[in-house]
Amino acid sequence: MRPWEKTEINERGNMTFAGCDLVELAKEYGTPLYVLDEQAVRKVCRGFVGCFERTGAKGRVYYASKALSTAAIYKIAAQEGLGADVVSGGELYTALSAGFPAENIELHGNNKTLPEIEMALRAGVHALVVDSHEEIGLIDSAAASLGVTACVSLRVKPGVEAHTHEYVMTGIDDCKFGLGIDDGEALRAVREIASCKNLKLVGLHCHIGSQIFELEPFLIAADRMVEFAASVRETCGIAVEEINMGGGYGIMYTEADAPMEPYDYLEQLLTRLLARCKEAGLDGMRFAVEPGRSIVGEAGLTLYTVGTVKHIPNVRTYVSVDGGMGDNPRQILYGSLYTARLANKRNEPVGESGAVAGRFCESGDILIKEAPLPRCEAGDTLAVFSTGAYNYAMASNYNRVPIPAMVLCREGESALIVRRQTYEQLVENDLVAPWLEDDKA
Amino acid sequence: MRPWEKTEINERGNMTFAGCDLVELAKEYGTPLYVLDEQAVRKVCRGFVGCFERTGAKGRVYYASKALSTAAIYKIAAQEGLGADVVSGGELYTALSAGFPAENIELHGNNKTLPEIEMALRAGVHALVVDSHEEIGLIDSAAASLGVTACVSLRVKPGVEAHTHEYVMTGIDDCKFGLGIDDGEALRAVREIASCKNLKLVGLHCHIGSQIFELEPFLIAADRMVEFAASVRETCGIAVEEINMGGGYGIMYTEADAPMEPYDYLEQLLTRLLARCKEAGLDGMRFAVEPGRSIVGEAGLTLYTVGTVKHIPNVRTYVSVDGGMGDNPRQILYGSLYTARLANKRNEPVGESGAVAGRFCESGDILIKEAPLPRCEAGDTLAVFSTGAYNYAMASNYNRVPIPAMVLCREGESALIVRRQTYEQLVENDLVAPWLEDDKA
Repeated sequence: MRPWEKTEINERGNMTFAGCDLVELAKEYGTPLYVLDEQAVRKVCRGFVGCFERTGAKGRVYYASKALSTAAIYKIAAQEGLGADVVSGGELYTALSAGFPAENIELHGNNKTLPEIEMALRAGVHALVVDSHEEIGLIDSAAASLGVTACVSLRVKPGVEAHTHEYVMTGIDDCKFGLGIDDGEALRAVREIASCKNLKLVGLHCHIGSQIFELEPFLIAADRMVEFAASVRETCGIAVEEINMGGGYGIMYTEADAPMEPYDYLEQLLTRLLARCKEAGLDGMRFAVEPGRSIVGEAGLTLYTVGTVKHIPNVRTYVSVDGGMGDNPRQILYGSLYTARLANKRNEPVGESGAVAGRFCESGDILIKEAPLPRCEAGDTLAVFSTGAYNYAMASNYNRVPIPAMVLCREGESALIVRRQTYEQLVENDLVAPWLEDDKA
Repeated sequence: MRPWEKTEINERGNMTFAGCDLVELAKEYGTPLYVLDEQAVRKVCRGFVGCFERTGAKGRVYYASKALSTAAIYKIAAQEGLGADVVSGGELYTALSAGFPAENIELHGNNKTLPEIEMALRAGVHALVVDSHEEIGLIDSAAASLGVTACVSLRVKPGVEAHTHEYVMTGIDDCKFGLGIDDGEALRAVREIASCKNLKLVGLHCHIGSQIFELEPFLIAADRMVEFAASVRETCGIAVEEINMGGGYGIMYTEADAPMEPYDYLEQLLTRLLARCKEAGLDGMRFAVEPGRSIVGEAGLTLYTVGTVKHIPNVRTYVSVDGGMGDNPRQILYGSLYTARLANKRNEPVGESGAVAGRFCESGDILIKEAPLPRCEAGDTLAVFSTGAYNYAMASNYNRVPIPAMVLCREGESALIVRRQTYEQLVENDLVAPWLEDDKA
């Protein structure tokens, strides 16, 4: 079901989401407001975990927290038995602050800094995912000085690159992440890791792209990863314990998007991995995946208040809202499409299409170029769907607009999980050079 | 002179900028680090102000602070006699906190909220720039309830749209900002403003685009604005006091950019405005401009530390740095081009080109696709030029990476003007819904 079809209409004619009246939420917490449906998040988590149970595969689902990293979401992920994939010291800090168990965390990144590596080793994360040759020595010496053994996984390029409806077999990928299987760099890295006293190679990792709607590229990548694990065993005598297939499952942003349920991808992927591992004699292999967008994306929406409605005769109507590229930069970054509804006029017929414009001082700050909506007026509450992933996570203070609040909704209850940023917070890191304090410098 | 040619090399072979050794700055303050050359900022401010003196035009230069809004820059702008253009409550708050005189501030925005309008009226800003019909009533009633007269300017669309090397005569603009001259909306708004008891129309405003390298579109827009001011006087009997021509002067990001000095545009623009106003009998007209990028853009650079250097045989080399799209989203947003140099290897010959990759977990996080650099290795200090505008201003916490610090440099001295964001600050707005506190929800 499409996210906008999961909403209901209550007796006031207002749209409800996770049992909460969206118009009331906008009044209570102010706008722009990120809204997250807790049960929708949990449902996807359980769907993914259930794939392991149904297929009999051993392993773990890591929540790719770059999609949305905040204390409450780590709590939920932990309660659902997921691990977490973090890509920076800041995400690791946030996860640990929320009480997320370090042993279920893995640290990613194409350019981890030494302080981040040390922080992860001190915390005792499950694995650091090695992304380059340099990092091998860096992690080894950091582990040596801390007196620990660092468990590492190796990110490889399986030669499959997928985006939405397309995928390509790339051979040697032109990408900043990972090391190539085809050009021998990955195998060289395995040997380097094996030669380091303070490292233990526990897994192999790949990630083939984002917002993928097809199953086939995942299956091809799975075949390549199993082949590579087999060749690592044959040529180096190392039995890796885990194959991590990354994330990339697509979600529904508009009517045009028709992905499978994300856990259907996973069930078929695990089935294939199990079969290929059996053929290769790699029994007991554990598997991991890293869904992020598919866990939180459709579970979130953003509420805005309509302000100016500008009819430009014979051109178009601009419906301006009180947020925009600061809280959702995906349209201006990637040309991403979104779906919107008026929460307070859910029963009114759709009129002519208008552009939903943001409030930021930039002509390109348009959230939706053509949104079919009822007649809009100042004060209307506009809901934009599927904003749970990569919205709060990518938010900026462009134009010094504070980052919006976020509420978690659960069966009609709501609670703040991110407080709205204040003006005081905006300036708390501002200083004035001492010599500027004089009247005329 | 190109920004990268303004640097010098000191006795250690390190690059200096505003008299400061960039390698030492990186060590002292850490990286990524925004660095701003105070005298370069002041030089451009004085250049703009000087145009008014030389042409005998009356009026004011407003610093368009959306380019870079932080306490220190408002101090400098005020000391140089500039006004400030703000586009949100947050920018207004920052300016006022820095002691910027409210009477030299104007508030812009296509969708100002009521609290922002009230904040500006209470502070006593020079003018609120009206952007739509709705806003007229909104400002009028806010002024009424505060018991003040609101000075307003009207943003109009002069039918010229310019970007870099191109401009178009648009007739009726398909743009969220302003009201059209050609379709009569602007004149209708003038009449509406005139009919409001609590509003005083003080000026007309236009803004034709960004990063413009040609003079001609500014001159055409100037002609249209004077014509419109004359028709406002004729048809409504209102003598506006000020014509504000906005900003948009281009700067140098790469060797390919060859703008005029920004104040050369202004001198010719003011000359044209004076002549046209004289012809139209609009003597005593004041003029305003709103440069932002041209004041701070070339005065800033960003320092990064090189981490991983990944040579992919027969493909390319990725030089990864410790920042990227989080601190400079312009490449991934607009495909903007930048110029980089190794600050610690300024004398070494350039080798093969490499891509300067950011640290963010996104394949597209590439700061420069092909940068001719000497052989790079971990620990090198990389300077990316012309990052003074729309870098800190657009920075995000994507991947929960803290916003970098900024230092102001002046003849070999340096001082922090923005403290580096801490991990503690990243989570200070995070809350956990009460029901999540239980072990298993």
